[in-house]
Amino acid sequence: MNDILGDWKRSHYCGDISAAEIGQEVVLMGWVQRRRDHGGLIFIDLRDREGIAQLALDPDRDPDAHGKAELVRNEFVVAARGVVSPRPEGTVNPKMKTGEVEVEVRELRILNSAQTPPFMIDEFSEVAENIRLQHRYLDLRRAPLQRNLLLRHQVSKTVRRYLDDEGFIEVETPVLTKSTPEGARDYLVPSRVTPGNFFALPQSPQLFKQLLMVSGFDRYYQIVKCFRDEDLRADRQPEFTQIDCELSFVDRDQIISIMEKMVAEVFKATLGVELTLPMPRITYTESMARFGVDNPDLRFDLELVELSNVVKDSGFKVFAEVVKKGGIVKALNAKGCASFSRKEIDDLTEFAKIYGAKGLAYVKVQEDGSWQSPIAKFFTDKEIASIDQALQAEAGDLLLFVADSYRITNETLGRLRGHLGHKLGLAKKDVYRFAWITDFPLLEWDGEARRHVAVHHPFTAPVEEDMALLDGDPGSVRAQAYDLVLNGSEIGGGSIRIHDQAVQKKMFALLGIDAEEAEEKFGFLLNALEYGAPPHGGIAFGLDRLAMILTGSDSIRDVIAFPKTQKATCLLSGAPGQVDNKQLRELSIRSAVRSQ
Amino acid sequence: MNDILGDWKRSHYCGDISAAEIGQEVVLMGWVQRRRDHGGLIFIDLRDREGIAQLALDPDRDPDAHGKAELVRNEFVVAARGVVSPRPEGTVNPKMKTGEVEVEVRELRILNSAQTPPFMIDEFSEVAENIRLQHRYLDLRRAPLQRNLLLRHQVSKTVRRYLDDEGFIEVETPVLTKSTPEGARDYLVPSRVTPGNFFALPQSPQLFKQLLMVSGFDRYYQIVKCFRDEDLRADRQPEFTQIDCELSFVDRDQIISIMEKMVAEVFKATLGVELTLPMPRITYTESMARFGVDNPDLRFDLELVELSNVVKDSGFKVFAEVVKKGGIVKALNAKGCASFSRKEIDDLTEFAKIYGAKGLAYVKVQEDGSWQSPIAKFFTDKEIASIDQALQAEAGDLLLFVADSYRITNETLGRLRGHLGHKLGLAKKDVYRFAWITDFPLLEWDGEARRHVAVHHPFTAPVEEDMALLDGDPGSVRAQAYDLVLNGSEIGGGSIRIHDQAVQKKMFALLGIDAEEAEEKFGFLLNALEYGAPPHGGIAFGLDRLAMILTGSDSIRDVIAFPKTQKATCLLSGAPGQVDNKQLRELSIRSAVRSQ
Repeated sequence: MNDILGDWKRSHYCGDISAAEIGQEVVLMGWVQRRRDHGGLIFIDLRDREGIAQLALDPDRDPDAHGKAELVRNEFVVAARGVVSPRPEGTVNPKMKTGEVEVEVRELRILNSAQTPPFMIDEFSEVAENIRLQHRYLDLRRAPLQRNLLLRHQVSKTVRRYLDDEGFIEVETPVLTKSTPEGARDYLVPSRVTPGNFFALPQSPQLFKQLLMVSGFDRYYQIVKCFRDEDLRADRQPEFTQIDCELSFVDRDQIISIMEKMVAEVFKATLGVELTLPMPRITYTESMARFGVDNPDLRFDLELVELSNVVKDSGFKVFAEVVKKGGIVKALNAKGCASFSRKEIDDLTEFAKIYGAKGLAYVKVQEDGSWQSPIAKFFTDKEIASIDQALQAEAGDLLLFVADSYRITNETLGRLRGHLGHKLGLAKKDVYRFAWITDFPLLEWDGEARRHVAVHHPFTAPVEEDMALLDGDPGSVRAQAYDLVLNGSEIGGGSIRIHDQAVQKKMFALLGIDAEEAEEKFGFLLNALEYGAPPHGGIAFGLDRLAMILTGSDSIRDVIAFPKTQKATCLLSGAPGQVDNKQLRELSIRSAVRSQ
Repeated sequence: MNDILGDWKRSHYCGDISAAEIGQEVVLMGWVQRRRDHGGLIFIDLRDREGIAQLALDPDRDPDAHGKAELVRNEFVVAARGVVSPRPEGTVNPKMKTGEVEVEVRELRILNSAQTPPFMIDEFSEVAENIRLQHRYLDLRRAPLQRNLLLRHQVSKTVRRYLDDEGFIEVETPVLTKSTPEGARDYLVPSRVTPGNFFALPQSPQLFKQLLMVSGFDRYYQIVKCFRDEDLRADRQPEFTQIDCELSFVDRDQIISIMEKMVAEVFKATLGVELTLPMPRITYTESMARFGVDNPDLRFDLELVELSNVVKDSGFKVFAEVVKKGGIVKALNAKGCASFSRKEIDDLTEFAKIYGAKGLAYVKVQEDGSWQSPIAKFFTDKEIASIDQALQAEAGDLLLFVADSYRITNETLGRLRGHLGHKLGLAKKDVYRFAWITDFPLLEWDGEARRHVAVHHPFTAPVEEDMALLDGDPGSVRAQAYDLVLNGSEIGGGSIRIHDQAVQKKMFALLGIDAEEAEEKFGFLLNALEYGAPPHGGIAFGLDRLAMILTGSDSIRDVIAFPKTQKATCLLSGAPGQVDNKQLRELSIRSAVRSQ
């Protein structure tokens, strides 16, 4: 079935021929998107990475080529030599880049045949994802995935050129490294040479990039695979890609400034969107107050308002008692949503309960400004006026209230805010709203483990003016950490790191890591800090997440060439798979699962 | 001990100040390379990635800064604000980029202290490699490793820019993939979610990049980590980096042409060396004939000459009988080496025996042209004349002969040739001689396994005109494979791949892989070939090896930031290490080694 290429060389991509090539002889190679027989003539839409060109085969002019064209089916691979001609009047397709021309084929070669694919290679067919993943090589032929991976390449390329030009050095860090069971679960790799010992795949190159700063590389970057053996959510993969940076002799503001410029370059190069710099900054405390979360979607308002003071002495016991017990009462104004049905409000209440709220109080503001609400009767006119004013309530608005602990109230209303933004169509895909969230707490209390855990990681530096609080009130110490949030997603996060061995030791102690454990797990970092570590900090961006937002994809799997399912399997290759017992013996391990 | 950066911003790298900055105020940050006290003044050599600047501290002018300078020791991290001034006459250092100037320091901040390092941070101290690896963050401060990693970055950057501009798309392929026990030993990763199953780390992205061609990405590249759990030689690492490329609708010549241009760009960008293109091509058969190996070092001659015909009827039974039994006799002329001592010739003989030769015959050509040799007496004058002529022997030459099977004769003399090239100083580090080796055999006979094995890999396409031989005489089929050899090292290798399912199946059959096994291991590739696979081919370059040659390093560990030892351990982090039993239980594996 194969014709060989012989001395043929492709002259153009299919998508690149246009009126400028009329009269030229061209050689195109690609896939048959569609064959049409029309009054004895055969037309083939030939597809390659760059687009589609129309081949025209005339049985009178070139009977041999025409004869071969009769054999081809969809997805056959063919090469065609012919002359670019204007399409006959009335057949011009202005929607296509190549729609003004066709190629009068002089010679056709069939390079490979194709079975009928299990789904159409176009962008319109809806195909079950497991079928797409099984035949990923066909799914990847379809225009949306082609576009996604091309755009992803454009992101990497832009990032690399920017960082190269800013004096960053790409350094590769090890994939086979040591397990440090902080944070997520490690993927392990048994060592053959050192039986009973294991490598771990890196969750991030954190320690290595800090060591590169100790080594004086000054500015490091890497676009690098990282690994977490976690139960997968829709937007997680066992292996994911970070744009990983670290800089010496800089403070937070310098890092933010360099990095937001990089993000702006990416948006310009990929979408032609000019971002406004500097990007807004919001402290963690302010973000929690206004949005209930530390990754706010700024495409819409629906801000949270605290009403604890207004309602603490009200006749509505539920609210008053929450405040008395140290909780808070907050609300948001869903503008114009008074028309929500009973069912819609019930759905919002169910949504709220997911995050631990016991209920969701609501008020519909009627045409005359009065409240229609089960809780209206508990409030005085003055209290109602205060609440209306605080929420800027107007006729037709829907007010939603949660009263609970600081954490539950904020998380519930914060999530509800995001949910409403999408429900109301306020979260537009082609609008991009960034913010840097700063001044995170350094530590949070883990009630179960009864100890502090690091909000970012144990290497994050405290804010210098809070350093004195480390001993007496560590929970109130702020971190020199910053996240970049885009449309409600954290796309990057980083911090100034601890460069002082004494501070690092104190941090480990606060986290309940004793000196022996610190030495065993992080001894090489502690040693390094002893030999002249410069002040340094860095950041990591999630490339998959960023590509997902830039392409408007709903799943992270749509921006990864060969993704895993949510059960961490590859439907294409069948990984993970069985291995020979000999392989396990060589690695000095046994499977605890009876072999079949 | 720490002064904070405060509002200080570094204005220049240490290495970047020169006479052009005289009179300017600058802020420098870096490490104390050396402190000298000289008549009350203190001079500090301050080092950063870009070089060294001299700080001058005058107790009368700036007593506070001078006081701090008294505290600093080698490798302290300091920041200095001051004014660039010409050095006093007689103290200019023309060897240094910054040697005309110094910085009159107005203010000094000590950013971090440093213990005395276990070795000097300079390029001259010889330090045992295990000490260097344990304190890698200090070793990486030294100029040779700084230079090596900067150059390596330059290589990656140049390669990426070239390939981007040539229309290649960077696509990331999975690190967690399936074990296909062909070739080297896999690193395995137990799956937690699918107990009893294992991922493997990729030995190369071979199958995925071929699938990307089936998907129509047309030109793919990736600079990617690959993994082989092999016993390590001096120039191997468990994880190594490939420049990996694949192209569709091209033949061998097009791939070679694109790739040799890339290599030329790299040499220009990193060393300023202009390579001559096109690079020479040598067939495998010719390379074996002339050099005895398929990775010849072309910096010197010392070519092998076959003498089987000349000696087959000679009185020297050893030679005659080898030829009679189907073996060959070859020799090389070590020009001017007749003065080698008995000991030197014994050493060469021992060297030859490593490769299986039973001995090494030699002839010293004396001043009068006559032979001084234990074997001289076995040859007639005519035979001696013929041998002299074939080897272009002259007075003072040393002729070295091996008689054995084709394989042993070539390997022995080929290695001996390389050895002599180095011994005689002919293998100069700053001379770069490339060649493409082409037309490798497709298969070789594995006498132990009693079957054919692929010389490259099972996806390599046969030369089209040899296709008919696949059934009758597979051992004589040539492959459409090509290696790029530089100074005796293979730095890249690739091939045109099989794109026809029937040929691929036949290839598996020839390799003794039955249909069931082929389906289980490579089913997804065979399926993909059924749905319209384009003609395609590719290549992979070893980035570590290339960086090693470009930097003139003797060890691959000197071009890797955090390398493993030859026992596949990391002396810095202690990887591989022990893990918790809980981790193993979650992965459904047990260690076969009693825990301590």
